[in-house]
Amino acid sequence: MINYNKFFEEIKTLKGNLYQKDFLLTWQKSKDELIKVLLVAEALKHLRDNNISTKCFDSGLAISNFRDNSTRTRFSFASACNMLGLEVQDLDESKSQIAHGETVRETANMISFLTDIIGIRDDMFLGEGNKYMQEVGEALDDGYQNGVLPQRPGIVNLQCDIDHPTQSMADLMHLKNYFGSLENLKGKKIAMTWAYSPSYGKPLSVPQGIIGLMTRFGMDVSLAYPEGYDLIPDVIEIADRNAQNYGGRFKVVNTMEEAFKDADIVYPKSWAPYVVMQKRTELLKASDKEGLKLLEQECLLNNARFKNWECTEEKMKLTNQGNALYMHCLPADISGVSCKEGEVSAGVFEKYRIETYKEAGYKPYIIAAMILTNRFENPVKLLKRMNNKKVKRVKI
Amino acid sequence: MINYNKFFEEIKTLKGNLYQKDFLLTWQKSKDELIKVLLVAEALKHLRDNNISTKCFDSGLAISNFRDNSTRTRFSFASACNMLGLEVQDLDESKSQIAHGETVRETANMISFLTDIIGIRDDMFLGEGNKYMQEVGEALDDGYQNGVLPQRPGIVNLQCDIDHPTQSMADLMHLKNYFGSLENLKGKKIAMTWAYSPSYGKPLSVPQGIIGLMTRFGMDVSLAYPEGYDLIPDVIEIADRNAQNYGGRFKVVNTMEEAFKDADIVYPKSWAPYVVMQKRTELLKASDKEGLKLLEQECLLNNARFKNWECTEEKMKLTNQGNALYMHCLPADISGVSCKEGEVSAGVFEKYRIETYKEAGYKPYIIAAMILTNRFENPVKLLKRMNNKKVKRVKI
Amino acid sequence: MINYNKFFEEIKTLKGNLYQKDFLLTWQKSKDELIKVLLVAEALKHLRDNNISTKCFDSGLAISNFRDNSTRTRFSFASACNMLGLEVQDLDESKSQIAHGETVRETANMISFLTDIIGIRDDMFLGEGNKYMQEVGEALDDGYQNGVLPQRPGIVNLQCDIDHPTQSMADLMHLKNYFGSLENLKGKKIAMTWAYSPSYGKPLSVPQGIIGLMTRFGMDVSLAYPEGYDLIPDVIEIADRNAQNYGGRFKVVNTMEEAFKDADIVYPKSWAPYVVMQKRTELLKASDKEGLKLLEQECLLNNARFKNWECTEEKMKLTNQGNALYMHCLPADISGVSCKEGEVSAGVFEKYRIETYKEAGYKPYIIAAMILTNRFENPVKLLKRMNNKKVKRVKI
Repeated sequence: MINYNKFFEEIKTLKGNLYQKDFLLTWQKSKDELIKVLLVAEALKHLRDNNISTKCFDSGLAISNFRDNSTRTRFSFASACNMLGLEVQDLDESKSQIAHGETVRETANMISFLTDIIGIRDDMFLGEGNKYMQEVGEALDDGYQNGVLPQRPGIVNLQCDIDHPTQSMADLMHLKNYFGSLENLKGKKIAMTWAYSPSYGKPLSVPQGIIGLMTRFGMDVSLAYPEGYDLIPDVIEIADRNAQNYGGRFKVVNTMEEAFKDADIVYPKSWAPYVVMQKRTELLKASDKEGLKLLEQECLLNNARFKNWECTEEKMKLTNQGNALYMHCLPADISGVSCKEGEVSAGVFEKYRIETYKEAGYKPYIIAAMILTNRFENPVKLLKRMNNKKVKRVKI
Repeated sequence: MINYNKFFEEIKTLKGNLYQKDFLLTWQKSKDELIKVLLVAEALKHLRDNNISTKCFDSGLAISNFRDNSTRTRFSFASACNMLGLEVQDLDESKSQIAHGETVRETANMISFLTDIIGIRDDMFLGEGNKYMQEVGEALDDGYQNGVLPQRPGIVNLQCDIDHPTQSMADLMHLKNYFGSLENLKGKKIAMTWAYSPSYGKPLSVPQGIIGLMTRFGMDVSLAYPEGYDLIPDVIEIADRNAQNYGGRFKVVNTMEEAFKDADIVYPKSWAPYVVMQKRTELLKASDKEGLKLLEQECLLNNARFKNWECTEEKMKLTNQGNALYMHCLPADISGVSCKEGEVSAGVFEKYRIETYKEAGYKPYIIAAMILTNRFENPVKLLKRMNNKKVKRVKI
Repeated sequence: MINYNKFFEEIKTLKGNLYQKDFLLTWQKSKDELIKVLLVAEALKHLRDNNISTKCFDSGLAISNFRDNSTRTRFSFASACNMLGLEVQDLDESKSQIAHGETVRETANMISFLTDIIGIRDDMFLGEGNKYMQEVGEALDDGYQNGVLPQRPGIVNLQCDIDHPTQSMADLMHLKNYFGSLENLKGKKIAMTWAYSPSYGKPLSVPQGIIGLMTRFGMDVSLAYPEGYDLIPDVIEIADRNAQNYGGRFKVVNTMEEAFKDADIVYPKSWAPYVVMQKRTELLKASDKEGLKLLEQECLLNNARFKNWECTEEKMKLTNQGNALYMHCLPADISGVSCKEGEVSAGVFEKYRIETYKEAGYKPYIIAAMILTNRFENPVKLLKRMNNKKVKRVKI
């Protein structure tokens, strides 16, 4: 059982201010703020695991806006909102009048009159997703300042073109638990590598999120990908700078093998080539269907040149004592299971399957912590009261 | 801060009975009843703005049935239900077995066993939407009287072919706030005018709702539209009669300019020609796709003859001191923003943009007030208790 | 008014254990367990009818997974969850990444981190639906045992290829109420018969559910269908065995008339031929569109040979004093109403329409009782506390 008092004391020592600030990119937050989110997530998980109600809203709306398909993030967001007492209302753009040329500024206000939080996934187009979230934020500022909205709802990035903070923070929570503490992560080598997949157009946000976040915690981050599969240059710079500022390391290497060498953690995951994502965005804007089809063929052909970028038992032997932790944001393309040839062999995946499920299981609590720290100035006071009151979630 | 006691005294003086009566058309309600809805909406807004819980259902279902696309009304209904403690369950007819020839009578009962309120939007076909709502109501009466339903759920019209009461009542609440009181609206001139739009088939319910309601409050209502864009004759009669009975005025004029002259409020908004809507209903019933396509072309061509029906800075100068309040139910077709040529110039819209957002912001409270007065015989007692108990909505 | 104490005493005498056990097939439950579900459903209905809150979850998620269209079961599940305090989150497989070859094992865990109950409808393919539910269950066991899930969510079968337990149990609750007690059902003759419908591919689960359940309560069950419209042989065996073990009778006859003779209850309902359903499953797996079209034509032609299998006034005269209770799971194919020629004449349906609505009205309570007995070890304690506390559902 957690020692709540000690725990709350720890949160109190952390600086920074998450209150009423959108959570868009982890590198826009101080390290203390990130740790605060982790600790609040842990507290919420402990309360929930002990059947203590974590409701802090008597009523209120949370809006989800998924501009791309989603299962686990959709359910994580729903779970997070439900445990805090918010009801999710999905903005399904296909059922709305938004297609009629309505501006982002207007829609953002129209859905926010009684809204506490907005979760957005927009990860399809390079240069678009994060920009859209910012536009929504500015529209909400405008509405709040002009007396349209009684309060400024917060925004949580549920994956954009640049970062996937609810994923990378859940990954960090998993690593903290797996290795015992954040302290223990210092110097640990993590291999964030591209991997072959027969599918097309996967976002760059997961690898970018990992190299942007793990370098903050003193880890030794190796990024590996085949020629042409670069990430957004700005994020590479951020990872570089983070490594320097936070006592970590960041290196780009050219083979999976090199990245895996002596790694404590491996994260093999497919993504689309940066240049292809750029071209695709242009073709989509121009509604050039023929061009899009050709680009997809070209890209899949190119992908196929790198089928050997698969996380196999053999490659795992290269890792620290052959025993690195395998991570994935799921669903993974598993060779012989979900596809013929994919990111990871069936054997490696099965060995770490339960660990990847646990990794995913932290996401609802991370999202809940992001919401809670956005809406409550003093989360410790709130968590203490929850723990003291001990209202039962299930009325056994 | 509102003086609740004085406020509650005012509600008490109002006659009429909204309890367990569907809200379908504003002209089926007495003036006192309409004022009661306004006051309850204001009370709910004040409580909410002061972080006081307005939950009056511990659990319960609200059903939404959107037979046409919707963003703001969908979210307004969801917000209204959430603030009272009801959970929205959407009746998505595409996912149901209703297509299998199920009768309205049956469906209405099947979804209502544990239901408190049903919100319906059905605005596509002249002569159909309001009729459908009445059929649902009769089916619920039948189910309740025969012991199928433990209670008779209420119905709120979220826009039909005849009226859009949640919109017009929100508009009225906006006018009351903007001009200071309902008393101040007496004698104010409102220009409800057609405006050009490049889109097709917009319902007649907004202009009909406005002329049917504002004539009840002593306003001087001028309706203007090009030849062929008549409204339903019955509603014109109602507006006429209202003007006579409630000390207002109602006049149909032939140009935007004439309507705008000395107006205190302008409401320029596109709608489809009455005759076209009638033809369209017939063609839809006959599934005549070719005919529908031809009708759309014909109608758009006809619309295009009236592109000068645009609310411009120049036309605004005709209004009372050039300073009339611009209103719109949103989304507006803004020239150069959401379309090439539309209902309103970008300059005029931008000047009143925030006001139109505020106008929209009253809708959740109007809907909540309609639900509350439908379900509770003594809303004052309930509101008083909420205000006395002061349960916090957000548990700060 | 119900005598709660006597009622609770009755529940306590029942043996068996529903706690943390999925509800997939009625014949996997002991008779005492089935009666317990009925009694808990009745208690919940009484509490609700008396405006007493039945919330026993402060927060929590219920997942619905409808792999086939649904209106009444969807709303029944939503109602059941809402009355207990659970929020429904729908797993819409078209909006998820499940199409990307994700395994059932993985999805089941991903949606369950904070989930209390999962309701599944999967009734399209013979040999598939129930199997899918079992797979989900095994995945949840695996996740729970491996520390992925903090608890093992329960599963409620909302209709599979074999059984439709929420329907048959609601039907039983209706019969208990109609005839006064379960005791009174002993020896009553029920005619579960095929009936003509112009539609295609209706599941076998309703007739199978009825013969599998009613034989447990000492009823005299006659099953009638035209040649080729057999049910799953295993279920026929179960009905046979049940009749022997529980003092009932089970007989397969060849005409509607023979089944109706002296019946106290008739349940005429269309279903697809077993062989056709088998072929269809194969063709669907092979994506043989041409084959599916041919099969449908063939099947409808075959159906048309049995248009005389209609429940008419004349056939009703054959029943016990011409006064049998007509039952249907709805929607029924009513001749001259929802189709030209169908399962039942308009006259017979209209006479029993209200009874069929009442029959449907028990389903929310049956589902709520299945959830409650799955999640709470001591439902009597819980129901007693609800009745003692008397928290008002509507805060009048």
